[in-house]
Amino acid sequence: MALVVCKFGGTSVATPERVINVAKRLIAKHRAGDQVVAVVSAMGKTTDDLLRLAQAVTDDPPSREMDMLLSTGEQVSMSVLAMAIDALGCKSVSLTGGQVGIVTDAVFRKAKIREIKPDRIRMELADDKIVIVAGFQGVTRAGDITTLGRGGSDTTAVAVAAGLKADRCEIYSDVDGIYTTDPRVCPRARKLDVISYEEMLELAASGAGVLQMRAVEFARHFGVVIECRSAFTDEPGTLVKEVNDKMESAVVSGIAFDNSEAKVTIRDVPDRVGIAARVFGTIAAAMCNVDMIVQNISEDHYTDLTFTTPIQDLPRLRPILDEMIENLGAREYIIDESIVKLSIVGAGMKSNPGIAAKMFQVLADNEVNISLITTSSIRISVVIDGDQTQKAVQKLHTAFGLDSDKVFEETQLSGEELAAKMEKGR
Amino acid sequence: MALVVCKFGGTSVATPERVINVAKRLIAKHRAGDQVVAVVSAMGKTTDDLLRLAQAVTDDPPSREMDMLLSTGEQVSMSVLAMAIDALGCKSVSLTGGQVGIVTDAVFRKAKIREIKPDRIRMELADDKIVIVAGFQGVTRAGDITTLGRGGSDTTAVAVAAGLKADRCEIYSDVDGIYTTDPRVCPRARKLDVISYEEMLELAASGAGVLQMRAVEFARHFGVVIECRSAFTDEPGTLVKEVNDKMESAVVSGIAFDNSEAKVTIRDVPDRVGIAARVFGTIAAAMCNVDMIVQNISEDHYTDLTFTTPIQDLPRLRPILDEMIENLGAREYIIDESIVKLSIVGAGMKSNPGIAAKMFQVLADNEVNISLITTSSIRISVVIDGDQTQKAVQKLHTAFGLDSDKVFEETQLSGEELAAKMEKGR
Repeated sequence: MALVVCKFGGTSVATPERVINVAKRLIAKHRAGDQVVAVVSAMGKTTDDLLRLAQAVTDDPPSREMDMLLSTGEQVSMSVLAMAIDALGCKSVSLTGGQVGIVTDAVFRKAKIREIKPDRIRMELADDKIVIVAGFQGVTRAGDITTLGRGGSDTTAVAVAAGLKADRCEIYSDVDGIYTTDPRVCPRARKLDVISYEEMLELAASGAGVLQMRAVEFARHFGVVIECRSAFTDEPGTLVKEVNDKMESAVVSGIAFDNSEAKVTIRDVPDRVGIAARVFGTIAAAMCNVDMIVQNISEDHYTDLTFTTPIQDLPRLRPILDEMIENLGAREYIIDESIVKLSIVGAGMKSNPGIAAKMFQVLADNEVNISLITTSSIRISVVIDGDQTQKAVQKLHTAFGLDSDKVFEETQLSGEELAAKMEKGR
Repeated sequence: MALVVCKFGGTSVATPERVINVAKRLIAKHRAGDQVVAVVSAMGKTTDDLLRLAQAVTDDPPSREMDMLLSTGEQVSMSVLAMAIDALGCKSVSLTGGQVGIVTDAVFRKAKIREIKPDRIRMELADDKIVIVAGFQGVTRAGDITTLGRGGSDTTAVAVAAGLKADRCEIYSDVDGIYTTDPRVCPRARKLDVISYEEMLELAASGAGVLQMRAVEFARHFGVVIECRSAFTDEPGTLVKEVNDKMESAVVSGIAFDNSEAKVTIRDVPDRVGIAARVFGTIAAAMCNVDMIVQNISEDHYTDLTFTTPIQDLPRLRPILDEMIENLGAREYIIDESIVKLSIVGAGMKSNPGIAAKMFQVLADNEVNISLITTSSIRISVVIDGDQTQKAVQKLHTAFGLDSDKVFEETQLSGEELAAKMEKGR
């Protein structure tokens, strides 16, 4: 008998019919002899509806009250799921974050879990019930309701699994696992059976959207084994866990790409001591994020500063850059929104020199120009022109031996569809 | 500085605009120097929407999960109201039944309040906040969410006022007070300045719909002064409180009528010992309510049994009556759905004999036939033909000196409108 935590996202419980499907899945697991805890998000677009309601009374709602409001979304989906399970003949109980004892700090809208008190869940499991837990929410020590912010339900699931010392934490979504890269861009993408926490974190940070980083970090910290699975099929998914060092690590496990950033270059900045600190200090003060930074070699006491930043931060950034050009005596700034950050990730890089050189060679052979480079111990990221993404991903996928025998013909995107997808990503 | 609890029903917070209006009212009170606690119901038709959602997954939802679901309605309205107050420049905090410490028994869907722990509210009031409390909900000692059933929000308001020893409990709705009778039926109806708990209870039990009986009972028990007021004007309303015996009580304070019941007569029942117990025991076992009961004098060992019952219970009652006629050897049963129960209520009846005689005389003079009579120490109820309601109410209203100088001309209902209203009341 295993103890399993199953997390279902908003899409999986968007309609009463889908709620009933989730109920059937949980009951099948329970009848097969497992102890089952389910963590659910709010149904479909509920959270958006609640946000709109708040906006109808104020532009600047207090975050404590926003959490009071938003937490109702999961309370609705979990009680309806418990009703569906009951109607199908199994005992069930739904529990709020407060009832479960998910204690967080008091940073409303993006609270961090401090503690899980698993007593109530254990009691209900011992009573042969399927236990439904509200994702995304917790409660402060003072009893105020908090929400965990983006990706919060994944984090709830992992935290509950950690608190219960569950055998595994299954995260259900509309994809059936972690792929070497996006099958829509690379038809020979291969589903991974296993990936290490470390690699998953680098892939997630580089634009692969399956799992939220916070949840993976939490899982790594507490040694929770995650399985990413499809909510609509019974295929086994991908395990995310500590990978034994004795095993041969793949040199490259996956290729991620991210088109949500723009490249900004400030031309001919007078090269004085502390200039970078001044530029990036000003940008940070305006709450604009900066990712990759490159400073070119100084020529005649002038230098170029290049960095990437989320496209959504550009409206705030432009007036700051205008002023900065004037104050610094720089020539101009150039913004390129058509770039893509391409990353290869693999735990085996640590012990295999020459991976970066090989990556650059493959790109050069295919006439893909690199404009920025950053690396970590298990990741190499380059900035390239967005139009070359598909070619670059496919060639690197083949070169690093990731190609599957199976080809995703049906899901292959045309050039236009790819452009549409990338537009949407922004 | 007074401590005031203000309750707003679902209609008063049905839209963001109305929520903002309620916020302005509360702020005006707060700025005038009062400590303000607001109790709110769910916005408009939210509860109906949630019930429909539950019905989409099951016909028979577990009541614990229904309460988990329904309690989100108030959580939404109270957080949005707190946001509106904040946006208008006052500090505010919303609290769930659990956070307030409204402890109930574990009878889900119609829980009874056992205890209120006012510490959290007091703390927030001391911090100069307007405190919003979720109506209709509480929490069991084990931490499960309950709802209080019909009229629950009024009860919450009174209970919170009792727990805080508030100066008064203001119940806001779309009517501006308690009237001697329904102004739509009797244009000379007069708004009462004061009414006793006892009279209010009898009027509520007899069909006057302004206040829920549970809330009035609670208020009487704890000595909470209620003021029924309009959510849309600033006119003073009606106080419901203990009326000092030294004051001259009105002989008749109000006239109520109720068209939600039908009259059932079982003809020629063999008159044996225990026959009434058998008939009404069988009806009670089917969960059909019975109000007034009359057994006629026995003739030739046969008797007629007449009683009134809610029209909504008739579908369950008919098959039981069919079977009963057979088993008892009675002749037949007759159902009359066109009746109205008319009641006059007044604390002064206790010390004024002859009120019943006067009522019957007024009805006789106006050719209104009485088919059933019941009385309590401060109430006399008669069953009459529904078509005669308007005439009977108006004549009694005048005869007992209740007429106002002001005439509600605009709201007077035509015969057709009255029929429509009565239809709706069912």
